Amino acid sequence: MSWEKNVRRVEPYVAGEQPKREGVIKLNTNECPYPPSPEVGKIQEEMDYGKLRLYPDMHAEKLVHALADYYHVKPEQVFVGVGSDDVLAMAFMTFFYGDKPILFPDITYSFYNVWAEVFRIPYKVCALDSDFRIRKEDYLRSNGGIVIPNPNAPTGVLEDVSLFEEIIAENPDSVVIVDEAYVDFGGTSMIPLINQYDNLMVVQTFSKSRAMAGARIGFAIGNEKLIHYLKDVKFSFNSYTMNMPAIEMGTAAVLDDAYFKEMIGKIVKTREWTKEQLKRLGFSFADSKANFLFVSHEKVPAKDIFLALKANNIYVRHWDKERISNYLRITIGTDEQMEKLVAFLENYLK
Amino acid sequence: MSWEKNVRRVEPYVAGEQPKREGVIKLNTNECPYPPSPEVGKIQEEMDYGKLRLYPDMHAEKLVHALADYYHVKPEQVFVGVGSDDVLAMAFMTFFYGDKPILFPDITYSFYNVWAEVFRIPYKVCALDSDFRIRKEDYLRSNGGIVIPNPNAPTGVLEDVSLFEEIIAENPDSVVIVDEAYVDFGGTSMIPLINQYDNLMVVQTFSKSRAMAGARIGFAIGNEKLIHYLKDVKFSFNSYTMNMPAIEMGTAAVLDDAYFKEMIGKIVKTREWTKEQLKRLGFSFADSKANFLFVSHEKVPAKDIFLALKANNIYVRHWDKERISNYLRITIGTDEQMEKLVAFLENYLK
Repeated sequence: MSWEKNVRRVEPYVAGEQPKREGVIKLNTNECPYPPSPEVGKIQEEMDYGKLRLYPDMHAEKLVHALADYYHVKPEQVFVGVGSDDVLAMAFMTFFYGDKPILFPDITYSFYNVWAEVFRIPYKVCALDSDFRIRKEDYLRSNGGIVIPNPNAPTGVLEDVSLFEEIIAENPDSVVIVDEAYVDFGGTSMIPLINQYDNLMVVQTFSKSRAMAGARIGFAIGNEKLIHYLKDVKFSFNSYTMNMPAIEMGTAAVLDDAYFKEMIGKIVKTREWTKEQLKRLGFSFADSKANFLFVSHEKVPAKDIFLALKANNIYVRHWDKERISNYLRITIGTDEQMEKLVAFLENYLK
Repeated sequence: MSWEKNVRRVEPYVAGEQPKREGVIKLNTNECPYPPSPEVGKIQEEMDYGKLRLYPDMHAEKLVHALADYYHVKPEQVFVGVGSDDVLAMAFMTFFYGDKPILFPDITYSFYNVWAEVFRIPYKVCALDSDFRIRKEDYLRSNGGIVIPNPNAPTGVLEDVSLFEEIIAENPDSVVIVDEAYVDFGGTSMIPLINQYDNLMVVQTFSKSRAMAGARIGFAIGNEKLIHYLKDVKFSFNSYTMNMPAIEMGTAAVLDDAYFKEMIGKIVKTREWTKEQLKRLGFSFADSKANFLFVSHEKVPAKDIFLALKANNIYVRHWDKERISNYLRITIGTDEQMEKLVAFLENYLK
């Protein structure tokens, strides 16, 4: 007998490697290659560290209002959390509390099944077609909830808003979470539809397009009733999650829209250049609208390329998983980083 | 039919008021009246906001190592989280997964029953005696886990380490969580006993004695196996919770021990002065070893005093709850703040 019999045992999620040494070209966790807005830097300098003695604003009102203004919604329609993982985990706890299985794609963000397991939520995965596209009919059967990223990860494939709208409209008895972590790089957000569909929750993050993975900020936008339920669960858990620096610096980032758009423009340009180069080198891939490419080479196995890149201090992501083991996910870095990647591959694949 | 039938509905926790206007004497949430170490301020200035583009170190190694060194334990025996609420919530999820009820005092931190309810953990509350002391025998019966603060909150009463040691030794089949949020103000930590008892987990926070409520940092110390289980659950939930500013500034706070001790010395001195004054004014209270007093007046109902103080911009905490409705919890502020409190009460109680 021992206390261990009362322990909840789980398989921990394995995240992408975070090499600590300098000189690595890090294209494995979809971070932004550029720093956040200089306005964020200003706030860092101006912040009064003495105020850290006080609890932060548990409603993070400053940040919530900035987001509400930016997306033309009401503050009561915005929920913020410690990265979109926090927001999504709370949403799984809150909205997927029925007996029917929730649905998500077989190839998708790898935390969905982890949360389903830790919260004991039944789930079914729906196979993407051979072009990594969603088969709409899979989501039109009985279910306890739906979560799909758009663009999807790690494929980068963007589906049309109309496809999602049909899924949402056909599922009035389920909350449909659209995970828009990568939408800013070329997709169309579903946020404008939240007043039309009360079962729609859109999730976004500051970790990619807003270049603030280190600040841990994610958010959800949905109708007020839905956001209210989410807040009730969150406040039963931990009232004060967003710390003062995250609230202050996150707000500054939202307010500097010109910088945000400029940075995204650069990443999209680099992505399109990288697509051409990789095609030329014999890679194939579904068209990506995210800040990464999901590529497969016509001759050389993905794992070999992955290891060769790693040995040369270029980190990309590879999964030893069914259907995707011959693919690499390559984050779009700076022009210089992508030129180095292409130069290495050019030589390696010769 | 609607998506609402699948919603987990909870009673949200109600935290102490956080008045936003200036000029309030805020003695209601046990914050530290002094700023964090000037070293924290230096780190704030020196931090490279450009690094926010990267994910933070998910293991928060810098902070974990600083804490391990400070408390003379191994880094593998330390777990950090977003405030002690995050650490405690994860611990409830991880260790209280059996069928037997967990035990905690009837008068205690008000989040324990909230977590038990949200995670569907059966629980029994054990009544403190009339002096607000723990009755040891209550914790020597069959249970699925135990959580007790020492000093207890909101009473401020400190129990001897030997009492806890007996409870821990007699419960080898349960994890015993000792919540030491307030231990630095005059208690003795149980951390040195973690190698002796593998079912002991000690939780502390940066929100009180380390003056960093706004940074959201809490931690647990226990044997390696126990910390390992806790990490597995945490990493299934959200890998990256501690943001870069929290890791950097938290580490700086731990390293400046001289400042930490000086600040605590000041608070303890103010607390002892306040005790004398309140006694003189007709208040009675169990002796507090925390950074607050839990007081009752011989003639005037607590609620009347609470409202009178509030009307005069002095915020203290009052609960309309059985057994404690005639008590006020008063955080120890600066000398000046406590003098103002005493002056007001002197006049009000005349």
